[in-house]
Amino acid sequence: MIHPLWNEYPQLQKELKQTLTIMQQSVNLANKEVEAAILTMMHSGGKMLRPAYLLLFSYYGKETDRQKMMALAASVETLHTATLIHDDIVDEAATRRSHPSIQATFGKDVAVYAGDYLFVSCFKILARYASDLKSMELNIDSMDRILSGEIGQMDTRYQTDLPIETYLDNIAGKTGELFSLACFLGAFEGQASKTVAKKAKDIGLNVGIAFQIMDDILDYSETETQLGKPVLEDVKQGVYSLPLLCAIQENPTEILPLLYKKEQLTEQETNELYQLVHTANGVTQAKQYAEKYTTAALKSLKSLRSINPEVTDMIYRLTEHLLKRTQ
Amino acid sequence: MIHPLWNEYPQLQKELKQTLTIMQQSVNLANKEVEAAILTMMHSGGKMLRPAYLLLFSYYGKETDRQKMMALAASVETLHTATLIHDDIVDEAATRRSHPSIQATFGKDVAVYAGDYLFVSCFKILARYASDLKSMELNIDSMDRILSGEIGQMDTRYQTDLPIETYLDNIAGKTGELFSLACFLGAFEGQASKTVAKKAKDIGLNVGIAFQIMDDILDYSETETQLGKPVLEDVKQGVYSLPLLCAIQENPTEILPLLYKKEQLTEQETNELYQLVHTANGVTQAKQYAEKYTTAALKSLKSLRSINPEVTDMIYRLTEHLLKRTQ
Repeated sequence: MIHPLWNEYPQLQKELKQTLTIMQQSVNLANKEVEAAILTMMHSGGKMLRPAYLLLFSYYGKETDRQKMMALAASVETLHTATLIHDDIVDEAATRRSHPSIQATFGKDVAVYAGDYLFVSCFKILARYASDLKSMELNIDSMDRILSGEIGQMDTRYQTDLPIETYLDNIAGKTGELFSLACFLGAFEGQASKTVAKKAKDIGLNVGIAFQIMDDILDYSETETQLGKPVLEDVKQGVYSLPLLCAIQENPTEILPLLYKKEQLTEQETNELYQLVHTANGVTQAKQYAEKYTTAALKSLKSLRSINPEVTDMIYRLTEHLLKRTQ
Repeated sequence: MIHPLWNEYPQLQKELKQTLTIMQQSVNLANKEVEAAILTMMHSGGKMLRPAYLLLFSYYGKETDRQKMMALAASVETLHTATLIHDDIVDEAATRRSHPSIQATFGKDVAVYAGDYLFVSCFKILARYASDLKSMELNIDSMDRILSGEIGQMDTRYQTDLPIETYLDNIAGKTGELFSLACFLGAFEGQASKTVAKKAKDIGLNVGIAFQIMDDILDYSETETQLGKPVLEDVKQGVYSLPLLCAIQENPTEILPLLYKKEQLTEQETNELYQLVHTANGVTQAKQYAEKYTTAALKSLKSLRSINPEVTDMIYRLTEHLLKRTQ
């Protein structure tokens, strides 16, 4: 199933469907139950934003081999899926995209190896389609930064005085890097000019950061059913995101005692915290940060209009739609 | 620290030391505590057999770039280290090579990402030194089989009627494949002839299988202190290896009721099981299997003597030493 978001972009939608097929074809396990779980996860209607950006930026180039571009898109989304499976182990998440997570269904044993298997799948697709080892190296350096970021982030758990700058660095690694890689790989392997490839990298980084902030804001604005996971589950596990960090600065007296309860936070206290973040303008302030990165991305995009107005407008429209979703 | 095993092979020992340095240099994390844990694990005196076989087989070729061969050896050992870290999560192992395991020290969160990070490091080294994408693909296909094997193996836990053939298939995937890759990569990237490369692959597979059987036998012949981990811990977790499988066939009446206790097996019952496996000739029979694979490996090796007697004798001596260690 492809997310309805893409109904408005028929050409891209068609390519994303094929990208999903390539992802699924690279999964081939003797254990059919685990194979099915991985396929279900791939099929569960994730937005496929990273492959979409990769494909969109490839339209700037002169590469005509769409199969290659879709394969690269599949490798990026496979990598993303691998990190989600491993994130669910770390977070002990029961659900993922409204389905039971692999670790909840099969235990962490299977989740560890299923994630590893997808890491390998990602490289398998890459090695087959990347134009040379240099491009593969760039890819791997990028993954290196993503994982260094994930490990770094674990250090900051339960840190109530986490500086906003550190939070921003963390999400730049965790989410920004993969968006940046997707955009760059699209332009670079799509044989766009060096200027486009360089800008694609920056635009991807800003889009990724803004997207992660918006995602973190959603935790404070949607119900459990809308989110597909329990509300503020991350906070109990010591993951403090931007709305909360902004709110702490405004009202530490009431918020900090709740955070000190860590995993012991009751449902009532969670609701209280949720309200406190809103009344301290945590969400509003976080939105201003997202706005800043969105504006930077859109400004940089505009400068590509002279190279290809049609493609630029498409990326512009998508980015605006995504990053202003709750505004 | 390099394992004393290599004192007899001074040239190889020197290269293994440099291989270890390359492995360590590829680890660079902002979180210095996790970095130290990974470095300690790398340094904890593992035998470095896979890189050793890679380097030994490379001596058959005409490649003069030793730096490249040591880097490839480092990538194979880094991959092995990554799988060990993830195996320890799955097994909930408290120790590894007589040191506390990463998952026991830092929790499974860190262990998941530390293993992932080493997977990436492995590819990072590979991409930098592999001669072309084709060689990288071979590598990745091999990893694909290793992980399919690991996932497949989890299916067979607590299966008291596990056929010996299935056990052999599992260890061929889990251990045989990486030995096979190491030997093949040594010969292939070392620019040995196609004949040598093809034989290297088969020899590696047989060595790996025999090595794993010997390793499984050790669980039934060494004390906790010698092993560096609790005796028969695997059995409690439903991992039934060759000595036990052979013993079940001889004396199911006494052995099966103990296995049905699963995790509830007491220390006394564990000792009882240990004795039963011995009196049912489980260890002796398992040694015969190991002997079969060792003989096949050594026979195939002999046929390479005409190509390079010196190298062949070195590999022969090592293989004989390793695989006859408890006989």
